[in-house]
Amino acid sequence: MRILVVNPNSTASMTAKIGRAAQLVAAPGTEILAVNPPDTPASIEGYVDEALCLPGLLATIDRYAGPGAGGPGVHGDVAGTVIACFDDPGLDAARALTAKPVVGVCEAAVRMATLVAGRFSIVTTTSRSVPAIEHLAQRYGVAGRCRVRAAAVPVLALEEPGSDARRRVGAEIARALEEDGAEAIVLGCAGMADLARDYTAEFGVPVIDGVTAAVKLVEGLAALGLTTAKRGGYAFPAPK
Amino acid sequence: MRILVVNPNSTASMTAKIGRAAQLVAAPGTEILAVNPPDTPASIEGYVDEALCLPGLLATIDRYAGPGAGGPGVHGDVAGTVIACFDDPGLDAARALTAKPVVGVCEAAVRMATLVAGRFSIVTTTSRSVPAIEHLAQRYGVAGRCRVRAAAVPVLALEEPGSDARRRVGAEIARALEEDGAEAIVLGCAGMADLARDYTAEFGVPVIDGVTAAVKLVEGLAALGLTTAKRGGYAFPAPK
Amino acid sequence: MRILVVNPNSTASMTAKIGRAAQLVAAPGTEILAVNPPDTPASIEGYVDEALCLPGLLATIDRYAGPGAGGPGVHGDVAGTVIACFDDPGLDAARALTAKPVVGVCEAAVRMATLVAGRFSIVTTTSRSVPAIEHLAQRYGVAGRCRVRAAAVPVLALEEPGSDARRRVGAEIARALEEDGAEAIVLGCAGMADLARDYTAEFGVPVIDGVTAAVKLVEGLAALGLTTAKRGGYAFPAPK
Amino acid sequence: MRILVVNPNSTASMTAKIGRAAQLVAAPGTEILAVNPPDTPASIEGYVDEALCLPGLLATIDRYAGPGAGGPGVHGDVAGTVIACFDDPGLDAARALTAKPVVGVCEAAVRMATLVAGRFSIVTTTSRSVPAIEHLAQRYGVAGRCRVRAAAVPVLALEEPGSDARRRVGAEIARALEEDGAEAIVLGCAGMADLARDYTAEFGVPVIDGVTAAVKLVEGLAALGLTTAKRGGYAFPAPK
Amino acid sequence: MRILVVNPNSTASMTAKIGRAAQLVAAPGTEILAVNPPDTPASIEGYVDEALCLPGLLATIDRYAGPGAGGPGVHGDVAGTVIACFDDPGLDAARALTAKPVVGVCEAAVRMATLVAGRFSIVTTTSRSVPAIEHLAQRYGVAGRCRVRAAAVPVLALEEPGSDARRRVGAEIARALEEDGAEAIVLGCAGMADLARDYTAEFGVPVIDGVTAAVKLVEGLAALGLTTAKRGGYAFPAPK
Amino acid sequence: MRILVVNPNSTASMTAKIGRAAQLVAAPGTEILAVNPPDTPASIEGYVDEALCLPGLLATIDRYAGPGAGGPGVHGDVAGTVIACFDDPGLDAARALTAKPVVGVCEAAVRMATLVAGRFSIVTTTSRSVPAIEHLAQRYGVAGRCRVRAAAVPVLALEEPGSDARRRVGAEIARALEEDGAEAIVLGCAGMADLARDYTAEFGVPVIDGVTAAVKLVEGLAALGLTTAKRGGYAFPAPK
Repeated sequence: MRILVVNPNSTASMTAKIGRAAQLVAAPGTEILAVNPPDTPASIEGYVDEALCLPGLLATIDRYAGPGAGGPGVHGDVAGTVIACFDDPGLDAARALTAKPVVGVCEAAVRMATLVAGRFSIVTTTSRSVPAIEHLAQRYGVAGRCRVRAAAVPVLALEEPGSDARRRVGAEIARALEEDGAEAIVLGCAGMADLARDYTAEFGVPVIDGVTAAVKLVEGLAALGLTTAKRGGYAFPAPK
Repeated sequence: MRILVVNPNSTASMTAKIGRAAQLVAAPGTEILAVNPPDTPASIEGYVDEALCLPGLLATIDRYAGPGAGGPGVHGDVAGTVIACFDDPGLDAARALTAKPVVGVCEAAVRMATLVAGRFSIVTTTSRSVPAIEHLAQRYGVAGRCRVRAAAVPVLALEEPGSDARRRVGAEIARALEEDGAEAIVLGCAGMADLARDYTAEFGVPVIDGVTAAVKLVEGLAALGLTTAKRGGYAFPAPK
Repeated sequence: MRILVVNPNSTASMTAKIGRAAQLVAAPGTEILAVNPPDTPASIEGYVDEALCLPGLLATIDRYAGPGAGGPGVHGDVAGTVIACFDDPGLDAARALTAKPVVGVCEAAVRMATLVAGRFSIVTTTSRSVPAIEHLAQRYGVAGRCRVRAAAVPVLALEEPGSDARRRVGAEIARALEEDGAEAIVLGCAGMADLARDYTAEFGVPVIDGVTAAVKLVEGLAALGLTTAKRGGYAFPAPK
Repeated sequence: MRILVVNPNSTASMTAKIGRAAQLVAAPGTEILAVNPPDTPASIEGYVDEALCLPGLLATIDRYAGPGAGGPGVHGDVAGTVIACFDDPGLDAARALTAKPVVGVCEAAVRMATLVAGRFSIVTTTSRSVPAIEHLAQRYGVAGRCRVRAAAVPVLALEEPGSDARRRVGAEIARALEEDGAEAIVLGCAGMADLARDYTAEFGVPVIDGVTAAVKLVEGLAALGLTTAKRGGYAFPAPK
Repeated sequence: MRILVVNPNSTASMTAKIGRAAQLVAAPGTEILAVNPPDTPASIEGYVDEALCLPGLLATIDRYAGPGAGGPGVHGDVAGTVIACFDDPGLDAARALTAKPVVGVCEAAVRMATLVAGRFSIVTTTSRSVPAIEHLAQRYGVAGRCRVRAAAVPVLALEEPGSDARRRVGAEIARALEEDGAEAIVLGCAGMADLARDYTAEFGVPVIDGVTAAVKLVEGLAALGLTTAKRGGYAFPAPK
Repeated sequence: MRILVVNPNSTASMTAKIGRAAQLVAAPGTEILAVNPPDTPASIEGYVDEALCLPGLLATIDRYAGPGAGGPGVHGDVAGTVIACFDDPGLDAARALTAKPVVGVCEAAVRMATLVAGRFSIVTTTSRSVPAIEHLAQRYGVAGRCRVRAAAVPVLALEEPGSDARRRVGAEIARALEEDGAEAIVLGCAGMADLARDYTAEFGVPVIDGVTAAVKLVEGLAALGLTTAKRGGYAFPAPK
């Protein structure tokens, strides 16, 4: 089985890091295909970046993981897709585009969090991203049990070797545990995919990364033979 | 005052119709600038069209109605923007892009509906659009008082002179009044902007179109001197 | 066009101030008719005042802006009504009484706030008014995105030239911006109608007053030809 | 102990009927004081009646059951008040006016319903009253488990010996049991207070009347020594 | 009338204390039957204790207060049951088991709290119990108006004469009044049933205990002739 | 890896069927341990059965899949637990008992459903189970997007070779697709675990079984190294 993991920004080092984290948790026999779409912003920070990455993101998903399930055209052997950005950009559109499963990393992380904790906090990068994640928490039905926090760390600082990004995210995790009654932590950026196990050890609570969570959900959907519903909002686009 | 009304699809006849409807309700001295962005789908029907129209839509808003309120660059004399598609595509991104007011037609219509009715129904084109509009109703806080229905009319049928689109939308309005306890009707497609007054007369209930409603809201915001907040999610995009 | 602005308390200086603020934002050709009903409390502070002002308030609306839209009796040329008290007292009753649009200042302010900001805070006068405003926020569908605060300023202190009311409201705005993640501020008392532009300048965020917002909404409804629905809860009272 | 039961309309036969129903369930030693306020509508049907009955209603409560709990003035020996109209008019204002318990019949009925049933339906008189009751259901936290229905019976028809009111309410109860999955029924008008036991026998499900339910809640609050909170929204009105 | 009050833990001193508190508020003629089931944990602190107490709890309810209302078997003269543990363990199961009313102490307390206060706080024993009570607040429709707090007092410390339990609960009440905007307090453990009146006097706000509240609700349901609905989820168990 | 799948009722044929379904989707190397606890009802139909199965269920989980993650005692090599009953009985208690992941089949099914569909319906056995599942849908945050239906099929009829259970469940699925706007179906009983793929083929929509979904989620949690949070409600039981 191959799983497409699309990092919708153009920063190759982040894509590589995400790909390694994904591969580490993948089942034997699962190959991770970590891809950057062309023509996207260097990072997805806020609503404008989120909008501008969509055409490249959708074209990439169509190319590698399109239709399936009786839809139009012939496509490759990819079992499903992970959209590796915590805003879950283009998730609904991707599900309409193809019948193969598509999972967002925010939704994957919060679904997994609800399986191991009552109340949890999401620690993201900057305050600009907080409202978008709060909307997702509302849609995913967890708004009443999670709080969204920002560590004031720009996304690309996570890629800079000498930055204090890791320390600042840790400090925000500590505050969440102290102030929010959080029982677990969700890391609110795909660029933190390599940090979950270390923070779990450091803080002694479950720390959940969405990229790896999404890989396991795509594997699970594939094993169950489940494809995206093609009635209602996720129907294939109609010919004009 | 000039107001930009962007129809995010590429169908010029629809843009012209929307522009005429907008101009009819505009205040004396308000000039409507009805525009099609380049490189967009012929109609916005479902999540994929909604995603693909965004780059053209945002570039158009930036060009005609960008920054303001102390933001970067010099822009024209447009007071604000109406996004003339009932899915409100790109609304958050447009608000981050510019300080000048941006109003979506779904949000405008449901805000106006709450001022004249308790319970109301939204009649849109096809079932493919229902879930996206239900999400908007949730976000706008009216999910408990409105029902979303589809008339099974493709968007472009609204542009065809001989089609039965008008009759079918009317039949769905009648069903909403009969079955939903609706006290008013919201027309769920910008391409129905010319039909509100006729249906109001036909059914004897308030029938609300979002394009014209949004024009009055942009005029109102401008008169009040209100611009989009630039803290949190609508902050201007950061330089990378 | 004439718009009735009823201040449901008996303090004439407040009515005059509200009338001036309303006239300042009104469109050319709109005349504001600012009125005090007879036999009402000097200020509306809490549930008891809110109840006791109703007969005078409704009689005034009936006299100046009654029926319309085919209802019983002959009435004047007023296009619609603003109820200029932030508790929105009698709003549902007024809508049942007349077909001409009626808009409350709390609802107007929060509707406008949602067009320019994600999260916002409402700063009202005293803690006695907070629960009533929280109920309105719930009904208007914005409870999840706004916080209600009191500045511990009695309503009538806003009318006293030498009082520190203005400073205390400003201090509460500062706290809201600091502690609530508020991106915009709504002024929670009609008696603050003259302060919005100054606070906007002082704090650099949108500060929204409901009286002026409501005037623009009534003008908008009139331009759109929308009257209050006469099915369901807003039907004209039945003869006994 | 004496309990004030105020029927806020002016129809004496209904007040007498309500008083008899209340006395039937009262504890030994509880005397029911059933009162009509002066200057109120003949029936409370819709928002306008609800508003107009308030001054008389509040004056009556103040006269018979005012302050207590350390508040201003000297008042009689009444232990608490039932507001005997299903719209719960003036409930918040009455609670601010006096420290002695005040219970509305809608709130009493739905609280009792949740103790004996999961899902239930409220059967009221006319469609005009449905939205107001739906708002109450929302405030009382039961909107997700009850449906509000109208039997198309004017309130005063319940007072006319030969009317078919009783049959029509019964027919609507039958529909609720058939279509709503209702496990119990709440009678949505104080004027139905004499019908609950008969319908219980006829339909074999719990049928709950709010007047009698409210009497038991006031007795309960009195036995527990609980009075209305005097912080926040229910604080005594401030001197002007 | 006899009312069964089951303390689902095995601590006899707590059962006796609960029984005394219940008897104090009971109507003349109501006899309280305070019982410990066999084979239960010494205290109910958290989800595991809550699960393990159920068979003994249900057997006790069946023995003393089973069927009624036309159900199978012959049972005694008990009018209804109070489950005297603030987690309301087994409440749904008990309602399915018997037609006689069953009331939980958490639900009783929050129902009564809504009759005398807008916003209130629940003060329970340890943090382990907070999530379970938050779920109940959600189910009972009061999550938006109450906050749940823990005083860090083990349940059995309430039974130890020299412990500082009483002081610590009082300190948490003080914090709730200071920080939460609480207008009233609910005591979140049946073992605090003897403390409500003292705290009411100490803090000058309504302090509500669920055991005594539940007794009055069972008496009320009995006086109204209301039994548990036997359609849907509370139907008697089917024979296998 | 071994996964404990506990069927909390005593019907061995159902346990065997569930075990086979679970093994079919398990990853290579995952061994399913399908177990009946001692002393449980023959089927779990309604709240009473749900309560009575708990002690046996929890003892079984403690024996096979207890503590882990630094908790007290020495336990076997089981990686986690599936509670194979659609009411998710004892889920919170099991999570408090052990640090190893515990997943309920209702929660697993609805989590997976949200990944492939917008709106879906749950088809369970009898009306007695509907309210309990509606409560779960509320807790899991999907109440707004799913409807719960009963096929009027007793649980044990699913075990009888000649029964029409399979046909009746299919008929209810057809109604859900016709009437509810459902885009996918969730099978609302662990005893339907063998039917999902057939119904998927028959109806052409995703049909989701919770047992198999839960197996994949436990495998996923294990691969991610996630264990149950031990702060708050899921802390290990305290010594008394």
